[in-house]
Amino acid sequence: MDSEAIVSIHNPRIKALTKLKKRSERDAQGIFLIEGYRPITRALAAGFKFSELYYCPEWFLGENEQKVLKTAQKAGVELIRLGKEAFVKIAYRERPEGLLAIGQQWHTKLIDLKLSTDPFIIVVEAIEKPGNLGTILRSADATGAEAVIVCNAVTDLFNPNVVRASTGVMFTTPTVITDSKSALDFLHQHGIKSLAATPAAKELYTDVDLTQPVAIVMGSEQFGLTDFWLKNCDLPVRLPMAGIADSLNVSAATVAIAYEVVRQRGL
Amino acid sequence: MDSEAIVSIHNPRIKALTKLKKRSERDAQGIFLIEGYRPITRALAAGFKFSELYYCPEWFLGENEQKVLKTAQKAGVELIRLGKEAFVKIAYRERPEGLLAIGQQWHTKLIDLKLSTDPFIIVVEAIEKPGNLGTILRSADATGAEAVIVCNAVTDLFNPNVVRASTGVMFTTPTVITDSKSALDFLHQHGIKSLAATPAAKELYTDVDLTQPVAIVMGSEQFGLTDFWLKNCDLPVRLPMAGIADSLNVSAATVAIAYEVVRQRGL
Repeated sequence: MDSEAIVSIHNPRIKALTKLKKRSERDAQGIFLIEGYRPITRALAAGFKFSELYYCPEWFLGENEQKVLKTAQKAGVELIRLGKEAFVKIAYRERPEGLLAIGQQWHTKLIDLKLSTDPFIIVVEAIEKPGNLGTILRSADATGAEAVIVCNAVTDLFNPNVVRASTGVMFTTPTVITDSKSALDFLHQHGIKSLAATPAAKELYTDVDLTQPVAIVMGSEQFGLTDFWLKNCDLPVRLPMAGIADSLNVSAATVAIAYEVVRQRGL
Repeated sequence: MDSEAIVSIHNPRIKALTKLKKRSERDAQGIFLIEGYRPITRALAAGFKFSELYYCPEWFLGENEQKVLKTAQKAGVELIRLGKEAFVKIAYRERPEGLLAIGQQWHTKLIDLKLSTDPFIIVVEAIEKPGNLGTILRSADATGAEAVIVCNAVTDLFNPNVVRASTGVMFTTPTVITDSKSALDFLHQHGIKSLAATPAAKELYTDVDLTQPVAIVMGSEQFGLTDFWLKNCDLPVRLPMAGIADSLNVSAATVAIAYEVVRQRGL
Protein backbone atom coordinates (compact mmCIF):
# COMPACT_ATOMS: atom_id res chain seq x y z
CA MET A 1 0.00 0.00 0.00
CA ASP A 2 3.03 2.27 -0.12
CA SER A 3 3.44 2.20 -3.86
CA GLU A 4 3.51 5.36 -5.96
CA ALA A 5 0.04 6.41 -7.06
CA ILE A 6 -0.88 6.54 -10.74
CA VAL A 7 -1.98 10.13 -11.21
CA SER A 8 -1.96 10.70 -14.95
CA ILE A 9 -5.17 9.98 -16.78
CA HIS A 10 -2.98 9.23 -19.80
CA ASN A 11 -1.24 6.34 -18.05
CA PRO A 12 -1.57 3.21 -20.25
CA ARG A 13 -3.13 1.23 -17.39
CA ILE A 14 -5.83 3.88 -16.88
CA LYS A 15 -6.48 3.92 -20.61
CA ALA A 16 -6.84 0.12 -20.64
CA LEU A 17 -9.23 0.26 -17.66
CA THR A 18 -11.34 2.94 -19.30
CA LYS A 19 -11.89 0.59 -22.24
CA LEU A 20 -13.56 -1.87 -19.86
CA LYS A 21 -16.62 0.37 -19.83
CA LYS A 22 -17.47 -1.43 -23.08
CA ARG A 23 -19.11 -4.83 -22.68
CA SER A 24 -17.31 -6.22 -25.73
CA GLU A 25 -13.96 -5.40 -24.13
CA ARG A 26 -14.93 -6.96 -20.77
CA ASP A 27 -16.23 -10.10 -22.46
CA ALA A 28 -13.19 -10.43 -24.73
CA GLN A 29 -10.97 -10.38 -21.63
CA GLY A 30 -13.42 -12.43 -19.51
CA ILE A 31 -13.33 -9.87 -16.71
CA PHE A 32 -15.65 -7.38 -15.02
CA LEU A 33 -15.63 -4.39 -12.69
CA ILE A 34 -16.79 -4.31 -9.08
CA GLU A 35 -17.10 -0.78 -7.78
CA GLY A 36 -17.83 0.53 -4.32
CA TYR A 37 -17.50 -0.48 -0.72
CA ARG A 38 -20.50 -2.77 -0.36
CA PRO A 39 -20.10 -5.06 -3.41
CA ILE A 40 -16.35 -5.31 -2.83
CA THR A 41 -16.80 -6.16 0.86
CA ARG A 42 -19.38 -8.82 0.03
CA ALA A 43 -17.23 -10.27 -2.73
CA LEU A 44 -14.29 -10.58 -0.31
CA ALA A 45 -16.53 -12.10 2.37
CA ALA A 46 -17.75 -14.65 -0.19
CA GLY A 47 -14.14 -15.63 -0.90
CA PHE A 48 -14.21 -14.20 -4.41
CA LYS A 49 -10.72 -13.60 -5.78
CA PHE A 50 -10.06 -10.25 -7.42
CA SER A 51 -7.12 -9.93 -9.71
CA GLU A 52 -6.62 -6.22 -9.00
CA LEU A 53 -8.03 -3.60 -6.63
CA TYR A 54 -7.70 0.09 -7.52
CA TYR A 55 -8.12 2.53 -4.68
CA CYS A 56 -7.99 6.24 -4.04
CA PRO A 57 -8.07 7.36 -0.37
CA GLU A 58 -9.07 10.91 -1.40
CA TRP A 59 -12.48 9.45 -2.38
CA PHE A 60 -13.00 7.26 0.69
CA LEU A 61 -16.21 8.01 2.58
CA GLY A 62 -15.00 6.79 5.97
CA GLU A 63 -12.55 4.63 7.86
CA ASN A 64 -13.73 1.19 6.78
CA GLU A 65 -12.08 1.27 3.37
CA GLN A 66 -8.67 0.69 4.97
CA LYS A 67 -9.94 -2.63 6.35
CA VAL A 68 -11.03 -3.62 2.86
CA LEU A 69 -7.53 -2.92 1.56
CA LYS A 70 -6.00 -5.04 4.33
CA THR A 71 -8.39 -7.93 3.72
CA ALA A 72 -7.71 -7.79 -0.02
CA GLN A 73 -3.95 -7.64 0.52
CA LYS A 74 -4.07 -10.69 2.79
CA ALA A 75 -6.03 -12.50 0.08
CA GLY A 76 -3.19 -11.79 -2.34
CA VAL A 77 -4.94 -9.13 -4.40
CA GLU A 78 -2.70 -6.61 -6.20
CA LEU A 79 -3.46 -3.12 -4.84
CA ILE A 80 -2.94 -0.11 -7.09
CA ARG A 81 -3.30 3.39 -5.76
CA LEU A 82 -4.71 6.04 -8.09
CA GLY A 83 -4.82 9.83 -7.98
CA LYS A 84 -8.18 11.54 -7.63
CA GLU A 85 -8.65 12.36 -11.32
CA ALA A 86 -7.34 9.04 -12.54
CA PHE A 87 -9.88 7.28 -10.32
CA VAL A 88 -12.76 9.34 -11.71
CA LYS A 89 -11.63 8.33 -15.18
CA ILE A 90 -12.11 4.61 -14.46
CA ALA A 91 -15.09 4.88 -12.08
CA TYR A 92 -18.72 4.34 -13.04
CA ARG A 93 -20.38 6.03 -10.15
CA GLU A 94 -21.07 9.73 -10.22
CA ARG A 95 -19.75 9.97 -6.67
CA PRO A 96 -16.95 7.38 -6.56
CA GLU A 97 -16.16 5.64 -3.28
CA GLY A 98 -12.49 5.15 -4.09
CA LEU A 99 -12.62 1.36 -4.55
CA LEU A 100 -12.80 -0.50 -7.85
CA ALA A 101 -11.82 -4.12 -8.35
CA ILE A 102 -11.32 -6.30 -11.41
CA GLY A 103 -12.46 -9.91 -11.28
CA GLN A 104 -12.79 -12.88 -13.61
CA GLN A 105 -16.26 -13.58 -15.01
CA TRP A 106 -17.66 -16.99 -14.13
CA HIS A 107 -20.43 -19.02 -15.72
CA THR A 108 -22.66 -21.17 -13.53
CA LYS A 109 -24.54 -23.87 -15.45
CA LEU A 110 -27.87 -25.48 -14.57
CA ILE A 111 -26.00 -28.68 -13.80
CA ASP A 112 -23.90 -26.81 -11.22
CA LEU A 113 -26.93 -25.86 -9.09
CA LYS A 114 -27.18 -27.68 -5.78
CA LEU A 115 -30.82 -27.75 -4.81
CA SER A 116 -32.55 -28.40 -1.51
CA THR A 117 -35.38 -30.92 -1.19
CA ASP A 118 -37.99 -28.14 -1.63
CA PRO A 119 -36.35 -25.69 -3.95
CA PHE A 120 -37.44 -22.09 -4.40
CA ILE A 121 -36.04 -20.52 -7.55
CA ILE A 122 -36.55 -17.26 -9.43
CA VAL A 123 -36.58 -17.41 -13.23
CA VAL A 124 -36.51 -14.21 -15.29
CA GLU A 125 -36.91 -13.90 -19.01
CA ALA A 126 -35.17 -11.28 -21.15
CA ILE A 127 -34.84 -8.60 -18.46
CA GLU A 128 -33.59 -5.45 -20.17
CA LYS A 129 -32.55 -3.11 -17.38
CA PRO A 130 -29.42 -3.91 -15.38
CA GLY A 131 -30.95 -2.16 -12.35
CA ASN A 132 -33.92 -4.54 -12.43
CA LEU A 133 -31.76 -7.64 -12.68
CA GLY A 134 -29.60 -6.40 -9.80
CA THR A 135 -32.68 -5.66 -7.67
CA ILE A 136 -34.10 -9.12 -8.45
CA LEU A 137 -30.83 -10.71 -7.32
CA ARG A 138 -31.08 -8.70 -4.12
CA SER A 139 -34.66 -9.90 -3.58
CA ALA A 140 -33.55 -13.48 -4.26
CA ASP A 141 -30.92 -13.15 -1.54
CA ALA A 142 -33.42 -11.59 0.90
CA THR A 143 -36.08 -14.24 0.35
CA GLY A 144 -33.76 -17.23 0.32
CA ALA A 145 -34.20 -18.17 -3.33
CA GLU A 146 -31.65 -20.88 -4.07
CA ALA A 147 -30.88 -19.70 -7.57
CA VAL A 148 -31.76 -17.15 -10.21
CA ILE A 149 -32.10 -18.43 -13.76
CA VAL A 150 -31.90 -15.76 -16.47
CA CYS A 151 -33.43 -16.93 -19.74
CA ASN A 152 -32.58 -15.31 -23.06
CA ALA A 153 -30.49 -12.67 -21.28
CA VAL A 154 -30.64 -9.16 -22.68
CA THR A 155 -28.66 -7.45 -19.98
CA ASP A 156 -25.36 -9.01 -19.11
CA LEU A 157 -24.85 -10.36 -15.55
CA PHE A 158 -21.48 -8.62 -15.40
CA ASN A 159 -22.81 -5.21 -16.36
CA PRO A 160 -21.46 -2.77 -13.73
CA ASN A 161 -25.01 -1.61 -12.95
CA VAL A 162 -26.11 -5.19 -12.21
CA VAL A 163 -23.15 -5.54 -9.85
CA ARG A 164 -24.05 -2.24 -8.21
CA ALA A 165 -27.81 -2.80 -7.93
CA SER A 166 -27.21 -6.31 -6.56
CA THR A 167 -25.11 -4.72 -3.78
CA GLY A 168 -22.77 -7.67 -4.21
CA VAL A 169 -25.23 -10.50 -3.53
CA MET A 170 -24.37 -11.82 -7.02
CA PHE A 171 -21.28 -13.32 -5.40
CA THR A 172 -23.41 -15.61 -3.24
CA THR A 173 -26.66 -16.08 -5.20
CA PRO A 174 -26.09 -18.78 -7.85
CA THR A 175 -27.15 -17.26 -11.16
CA VAL A 176 -27.40 -19.18 -14.42
CA ILE A 177 -27.72 -17.69 -17.90
CA THR A 178 -29.54 -20.05 -20.26
CA ASP A 179 -32.51 -20.30 -22.63
CA SER A 180 -36.17 -20.78 -21.69
CA LYS A 181 -36.42 -24.35 -23.03
CA SER A 182 -33.41 -25.54 -21.01
CA ALA A 183 -34.74 -23.79 -17.91
CA LEU A 184 -38.18 -25.41 -18.23
CA ASP A 185 -36.61 -28.85 -18.81
CA PHE A 186 -34.49 -28.34 -15.70
CA LEU A 187 -37.56 -27.44 -13.61
CA HIS A 188 -39.43 -30.49 -14.91
CA GLN A 189 -36.50 -32.82 -14.18
CA HIS A 190 -36.41 -31.61 -10.60
CA GLY A 191 -40.16 -31.63 -10.03
CA ILE A 192 -40.25 -27.86 -9.60
CA LYS A 193 -43.56 -26.17 -10.47
CA SER A 194 -43.31 -23.00 -12.54
CA LEU A 195 -45.49 -20.15 -11.32
CA ALA A 196 -46.12 -17.37 -13.82
CA ALA A 197 -47.90 -14.12 -13.06
CA THR A 198 -50.28 -13.11 -15.83
CA PRO A 199 -53.33 -10.82 -15.76
CA ALA A 200 -55.31 -13.58 -17.55
CA ALA A 201 -54.97 -16.03 -14.63
CA LYS A 202 -57.90 -16.69 -12.31
CA GLU A 203 -56.09 -17.86 -9.21
CA LEU A 204 -54.43 -15.40 -6.85
CA TYR A 205 -50.75 -16.05 -6.13
CA THR A 206 -51.62 -16.05 -2.42
CA ASP A 207 -54.05 -18.95 -2.91
CA VAL A 208 -51.39 -21.28 -4.33
CA ASP A 209 -49.33 -23.64 -2.15
CA LEU A 210 -45.85 -22.14 -2.38
CA THR A 211 -44.30 -24.56 0.07
CA GLN A 212 -43.97 -27.09 -2.77
CA PRO A 213 -40.87 -26.94 -5.01
CA VAL A 214 -41.55 -23.77 -6.97
CA ALA A 215 -40.03 -21.33 -9.44
CA ILE A 216 -41.39 -17.82 -9.85
CA VAL A 217 -41.15 -16.94 -13.56
CA MET A 218 -41.14 -13.26 -14.56
CA GLY A 219 -41.11 -11.70 -18.03
CA SER A 220 -39.39 -8.68 -19.51
CA GLU A 221 -40.20 -5.08 -18.61
CA GLN A 222 -41.73 -4.24 -21.95
CA PHE A 223 -43.33 -7.44 -23.15
CA GLY A 224 -44.02 -9.52 -20.03
CA LEU A 225 -43.77 -13.29 -20.34
CA THR A 226 -43.50 -14.90 -23.75
CA ASP A 227 -46.06 -17.43 -24.95
CA PHE A 228 -43.55 -20.17 -24.23
CA TRP A 229 -43.89 -19.67 -20.47
CA LEU A 230 -47.55 -18.72 -20.53
CA LYS A 231 -48.34 -21.99 -22.31
CA ASN A 232 -45.96 -24.22 -20.42
CA CYS A 233 -46.17 -22.92 -16.86
CA ASP A 234 -47.75 -25.14 -14.21
CA LEU A 235 -49.32 -22.43 -12.09
CA PRO A 236 -50.65 -19.32 -13.81
CA VAL A 237 -51.46 -16.78 -11.09
CA ARG A 238 -52.75 -13.27 -10.80
CA LEU A 239 -51.22 -10.41 -8.83
CA PRO A 240 -54.10 -8.12 -7.80
CA MET A 241 -53.89 -4.63 -9.31
CA ALA A 242 -56.03 -2.03 -7.57
CA GLY A 243 -55.31 1.13 -9.52
CA ILE A 244 -55.17 2.59 -13.00
CA ALA A 245 -51.99 0.79 -14.03
CA ASP A 246 -52.15 -2.71 -15.51
CA SER A 247 -48.73 -3.86 -14.40
CA LEU A 248 -46.05 -3.41 -11.80
CA ASN A 249 -42.33 -2.93 -12.26
CA VAL A 250 -40.92 -6.45 -12.82
CA SER A 251 -38.64 -6.33 -9.80
CA ALA A 252 -41.52 -5.09 -7.61
CA ALA A 253 -43.79 -7.93 -8.77
CA THR A 254 -40.98 -10.44 -8.17
CA VAL A 255 -40.36 -9.34 -4.60
CA ALA A 256 -44.09 -9.29 -3.78
CA ILE A 257 -44.46 -12.92 -4.85
CA ALA A 258 -41.12 -13.99 -3.35
CA TYR A 259 -42.19 -12.65 0.06
CA GLU A 260 -45.40 -14.65 -0.19
CA VAL A 261 -43.17 -17.73 -0.55
CA VAL A 262 -41.37 -16.61 2.63
CA ARG A 263 -44.67 -16.04 4.45
CA GLN A 264 -45.91 -19.52 3.60
CA ARG A 265 -42.63 -21.30 4.28
CA GLY A 266 -41.27 -19.22 7.13
CA LEU A 267 -37.56 -18.48 7.28
CA MET B 1 -51.73 19.83 -36.14
CA ASP B 2 -50.88 21.39 -39.45
CA SER B 3 -48.62 24.05 -38.07
CA GLU B 4 -45.03 24.47 -39.22
CA ALA B 5 -42.62 22.35 -37.18
CA ILE B 6 -39.90 24.00 -35.11
CA VAL B 7 -36.74 22.45 -36.50
CA SER B 8 -33.92 24.69 -35.28
CA ILE B 9 -32.36 23.77 -31.97
CA HIS B 10 -31.57 27.47 -31.62
CA ASN B 11 -35.23 28.45 -31.64
CA PRO B 12 -35.95 30.53 -28.49
CA ARG B 13 -38.76 28.20 -27.45
CA ILE B 14 -36.44 25.16 -27.63
CA LYS B 15 -33.83 27.06 -25.63
CA ALA B 16 -36.42 27.93 -22.98
CA LEU B 17 -37.56 24.30 -22.80
CA THR B 18 -34.01 23.04 -22.45
CA LYS B 19 -33.65 25.20 -19.36
CA LEU B 20 -36.47 23.22 -17.72
CA LYS B 21 -34.03 20.36 -17.20
CA LYS B 22 -33.00 22.35 -14.11
CA ARG B 23 -35.22 21.93 -11.06
CA SER B 24 -34.73 25.58 -10.05
CA GLU B 25 -36.11 26.71 -13.40
CA ARG B 26 -39.12 24.35 -13.20
CA ASP B 27 -39.90 25.42 -9.65
CA ALA B 28 -39.51 29.12 -10.45
CA GLN B 29 -42.10 28.72 -13.21
CA GLY B 30 -44.25 26.24 -11.23
CA ILE B 31 -44.26 23.79 -14.13
CA PHE B 32 -42.93 20.30 -14.93
CA LEU B 33 -42.32 17.95 -17.83
CA ILE B 34 -44.25 14.81 -18.67
CA GLU B 35 -42.49 12.72 -21.27
CA GLY B 36 -43.59 9.61 -23.10
CA TYR B 37 -46.73 7.85 -24.21
CA ARG B 38 -47.76 6.17 -20.97
CA PRO B 39 -47.53 9.07 -18.48
CA ILE B 40 -49.14 11.45 -20.98
CA THR B 41 -51.99 9.04 -21.71
CA ARG B 42 -52.63 8.51 -18.02
CA ALA B 43 -52.49 12.23 -17.30
CA LEU B 44 -55.08 12.88 -20.02
CA ALA B 45 -57.27 10.02 -18.74
CA ALA B 46 -57.09 11.54 -15.24
CA GLY B 47 -58.33 14.84 -16.65
CA PHE B 48 -55.03 16.61 -16.02
CA LYS B 49 -54.69 19.80 -18.05
CA PHE B 50 -51.44 20.32 -19.93
CA SER B 51 -50.54 23.79 -21.05
CA GLU B 52 -48.50 22.57 -24.03
CA LEU B 53 -47.77 19.31 -25.80
CA TYR B 54 -44.66 19.00 -27.98
CA TYR B 55 -44.63 16.17 -30.48
CA CYS B 56 -42.45 14.76 -33.20
CA PRO B 57 -43.99 12.03 -35.42
CA GLU B 58 -40.52 10.94 -36.59
CA TRP B 59 -39.98 9.57 -33.05
CA PHE B 60 -43.38 7.89 -32.63
CA LEU B 61 -43.19 4.18 -31.86
CA GLY B 62 -46.57 3.24 -33.33
CA GLU B 63 -50.01 4.44 -34.32
CA ASN B 64 -51.43 5.29 -30.90
CA GLU B 65 -49.63 8.60 -30.58
CA GLN B 66 -52.03 10.20 -33.07
CA LYS B 67 -54.92 9.42 -30.71
CA VAL B 68 -53.08 11.13 -27.89
CA LEU B 69 -52.71 14.25 -30.04
CA LYS B 70 -56.44 14.23 -30.83
CA THR B 71 -57.44 13.76 -27.20
CA ALA B 72 -55.11 16.56 -26.14
CA GLN B 73 -56.39 18.87 -28.87
CA LYS B 74 -59.99 18.26 -27.83
CA ALA B 75 -58.99 19.11 -24.26
CA GLY B 76 -57.72 22.47 -25.51
CA VAL B 77 -53.99 21.74 -25.22
CA GLU B 78 -51.67 23.72 -27.49
CA LEU B 79 -49.85 21.27 -29.80
CA ILE B 80 -46.41 22.17 -31.10
CA ARG B 81 -44.67 20.04 -33.67
CA LEU B 82 -40.89 19.73 -33.45
CA GLY B 83 -38.23 18.48 -35.83
CA LYS B 84 -36.30 15.34 -34.92
CA GLU B 85 -33.21 17.10 -33.59
CA ALA B 86 -35.16 19.80 -31.78
CA PHE B 87 -37.13 17.09 -29.98
CA VAL B 88 -33.97 15.31 -28.85
CA LYS B 89 -32.76 18.61 -27.45
CA ILE B 90 -35.73 18.93 -25.09
CA ALA B 91 -36.25 15.20 -24.35
CA TYR B 92 -35.02 13.40 -21.26
CA ARG B 93 -35.20 9.87 -22.50
CA GLU B 94 -32.34 8.34 -24.40
CA ARG B 95 -34.82 6.95 -26.89
CA PRO B 96 -37.51 9.64 -27.09
CA GLU B 97 -41.10 8.63 -27.88
CA GLY B 98 -41.95 11.91 -29.58
CA LEU B 99 -44.31 13.22 -26.89
CA LEU B 100 -43.45 15.75 -24.19
CA ALA B 101 -45.97 17.84 -22.30
CA ILE B 102 -45.70 20.77 -19.94
CA GLY B 103 -48.03 20.95 -16.96
CA GLN B 104 -48.55 23.08 -13.87
CA GLN B 105 -47.20 21.69 -10.60
CA TRP B 106 -49.78 21.15 -7.88
CA HIS B 107 -49.43 20.79 -4.15
CA THR B 108 -51.76 18.45 -2.27
CA LYS B 109 -51.93 19.12 1.48
CA LEU B 110 -52.70 16.66 4.27
CA ILE B 111 -56.01 18.46 4.79
CA ASP B 112 -56.93 17.76 1.15
CA LEU B 113 -56.79 13.97 1.59
CA LYS B 114 -60.15 12.23 1.49
CA LEU B 115 -59.81 9.03 3.48
CA SER B 116 -61.92 5.89 3.59
CA THR B 117 -63.11 4.42 6.89
CA ASP B 118 -60.12 2.02 6.99
CA PRO B 119 -57.34 3.94 5.34
CA PHE B 120 -54.19 2.38 3.95
CA ILE B 121 -51.43 4.92 3.38
CA ILE B 122 -47.75 4.78 2.43
CA VAL B 123 -45.40 7.22 4.17
CA VAL B 124 -41.82 7.63 2.95
CA GLU B 125 -39.09 9.64 4.61
CA ALA B 126 -36.33 11.45 2.73
CA ILE B 127 -36.24 9.18 -0.34
CA GLU B 128 -33.25 10.23 -2.41
CA LYS B 129 -33.67 8.51 -5.75
CA PRO B 130 -36.40 9.69 -8.12
CA GLY B 131 -36.67 6.17 -9.54
CA ASN B 132 -37.48 4.79 -6.08
CA LEU B 133 -40.15 7.42 -5.39
CA GLY B 134 -41.72 6.75 -8.80
CA THR B 135 -41.70 2.99 -8.19
CA ILE B 136 -43.26 3.49 -4.74
CA LEU B 137 -46.04 5.58 -6.31
CA ARG B 138 -46.59 2.76 -8.80
CA SER B 139 -46.80 0.22 -5.96
CA ALA B 140 -49.22 2.50 -4.10
CA ASP B 141 -51.47 2.54 -7.17
CA ALA B 142 -51.24 -1.24 -7.58
CA THR B 143 -52.03 -2.02 -3.95
CA GLY B 144 -54.78 0.55 -3.53
CA ALA B 145 -52.98 2.83 -1.09
CA GLU B 146 -55.14 5.92 -0.70
CA ALA B 147 -52.27 8.35 -0.46
CA VAL B 148 -48.50 8.65 -0.38
CA ILE B 149 -47.04 11.06 2.17
CA VAL B 150 -43.45 12.12 1.48
CA CYS B 151 -41.73 13.46 4.61
CA ASN B 152 -38.69 15.69 4.43
CA ALA B 153 -38.53 15.27 0.66
CA VAL B 154 -35.09 15.02 -0.89
CA THR B 155 -36.17 14.22 -4.40
CA ASP B 156 -38.77 16.48 -5.90
CA LEU B 157 -42.15 14.97 -6.87
CA PHE B 158 -41.96 16.76 -10.22
CA ASN B 159 -38.53 15.41 -11.13
CA PRO B 160 -38.86 13.98 -14.68
CA ASN B 161 -37.55 10.62 -13.46
CA VAL B 162 -40.27 10.41 -10.79
CA VAL B 163 -42.87 11.12 -13.47
CA ARG B 164 -41.32 8.47 -15.70
CA ALA B 165 -40.85 5.77 -13.03
CA SER B 166 -44.40 6.38 -11.77
CA THR B 167 -45.65 5.64 -15.32
CA GLY B 168 -48.13 8.45 -14.76
CA VAL B 169 -49.90 7.10 -11.66
CA MET B 170 -48.82 10.32 -9.89
CA PHE B 171 -51.80 11.93 -11.61
CA THR B 172 -54.23 9.72 -9.70
CA THR B 173 -52.40 8.79 -6.47
CA PRO B 174 -52.78 11.67 -4.00
CA THR B 175 -49.26 12.58 -2.87
CA VAL B 176 -48.47 15.04 -0.10
CA ILE B 177 -45.07 16.58 0.63
CA THR B 178 -44.73 17.48 4.31
CA ASP B 179 -42.55 16.95 7.39
CA SER B 180 -42.47 13.88 9.63
CA LYS B 181 -44.07 15.60 12.64
CA SER B 182 -47.06 16.82 10.61
CA ALA B 183 -47.45 13.37 9.03
CA LEU B 184 -47.45 11.62 12.41
CA ASP B 185 -49.95 14.11 13.84
CA PHE B 186 -52.18 13.50 10.83
CA LEU B 187 -52.03 9.72 11.34
CA HIS B 188 -52.86 10.12 15.04
CA GLN B 189 -55.78 12.44 14.33
CA HIS B 190 -57.25 9.86 11.97
CA GLY B 191 -56.60 6.84 14.16
CA ILE B 192 -54.16 5.37 11.63
CA LYS B 193 -51.48 3.08 13.06
CA SER B 194 -47.95 3.63 11.76
CA LEU B 195 -46.10 0.45 10.84
CA ALA B 196 -42.32 0.79 10.54
CA ALA B 197 -40.01 -1.94 9.29
CA THR B 198 -36.84 -2.16 11.36
CA PRO B 199 -34.40 -5.05 11.84
CA ALA B 200 -34.65 -4.52 15.61
CA ALA B 201 -38.37 -5.42 15.72
CA LYS B 202 -39.52 -8.79 17.05
CA GLU B 203 -42.85 -9.12 15.31
CA LEU B 204 -43.08 -10.17 11.66
CA TYR B 205 -45.04 -7.81 9.40
CA THR B 206 -47.18 -10.78 8.37
CA ASP B 207 -48.27 -11.35 12.00
CA VAL B 208 -49.75 -7.86 12.36
CA ASP B 209 -53.41 -7.07 11.60
CA LEU B 210 -53.17 -4.90 8.52
CA THR B 211 -56.91 -4.64 8.02
CA GLN B 212 -56.98 -1.86 10.63
CA PRO B 213 -56.30 1.74 9.49
CA VAL B 214 -52.59 1.58 8.75
CA ALA B 215 -49.68 3.52 7.27
CA ILE B 216 -46.51 1.76 6.09
CA VAL B 217 -43.59 4.04 6.95
CA MET B 218 -40.31 3.60 5.03
CA GLY B 219 -36.98 5.37 5.50
CA SER B 220 -34.36 6.64 3.09
CA GLU B 221 -32.14 4.41 0.95
CA GLN B 222 -28.97 5.20 2.81
CA PHE B 223 -30.03 5.77 6.39
CA GLY B 224 -33.32 3.93 6.82
CA LEU B 225 -35.89 5.40 9.19
CA THR B 226 -34.91 8.23 11.50
CA ASP B 227 -35.22 7.92 15.27
CA PHE B 228 -38.35 10.06 15.08
CA TRP B 229 -40.31 7.27 13.39
CA LEU B 230 -38.56 4.42 15.15
CA LYS B 231 -39.53 5.95 18.52
CA ASN B 232 -43.02 7.11 17.59
CA CYS B 233 -44.32 4.31 15.39
CA ASP B 234 -47.16 2.15 16.69
CA LEU B 235 -46.17 -1.12 15.07
CA PRO B 236 -42.46 -1.88 14.69
CA VAL B 237 -42.18 -4.93 12.44
CA ARG B 238 -39.51 -7.09 10.90
CA LEU B 239 -39.16 -8.08 7.26
CA PRO B 240 -37.39 -11.47 7.21
CA MET B 241 -33.98 -11.39 5.50
CA ALA B 242 -32.63 -14.78 4.50
CA GLY B 243 -29.33 -13.96 2.84
CA ILE B 244 -26.10 -12.07 3.32
CA ALA B 245 -27.60 -8.61 2.85
CA ASP B 246 -29.10 -6.76 5.79
CA SER B 247 -31.60 -4.68 3.85
CA LEU B 248 -33.70 -4.57 0.73
CA ASN B 249 -34.10 -1.77 -1.76
CA VAL B 250 -36.65 0.63 -0.19
CA SER B 251 -39.14 0.30 -3.02
CA ALA B 252 -38.86 -3.52 -2.88
CA ALA B 253 -39.50 -3.55 0.89
CA THR B 254 -42.46 -1.20 0.42
CA VAL B 255 -44.15 -3.35 -2.20
CA ALA B 256 -43.59 -6.55 -0.19
CA ILE B 257 -45.40 -5.07 2.82
CA ALA B 258 -48.06 -3.33 0.71
CA TYR B 259 -48.99 -6.65 -0.92
CA GLU B 260 -49.37 -8.20 2.53
CA VAL B 261 -51.95 -5.46 3.21
CA VAL B 262 -53.71 -6.52 -0.02
CA ARG B 263 -53.54 -10.21 0.97
CA GLN B 264 -55.13 -9.52 4.35
CA ARG B 265 -57.75 -7.10 3.07
CA GLY B 266 -58.49 -8.54 -0.32
CA LEU B 267 -59.08 -6.22 -3.26
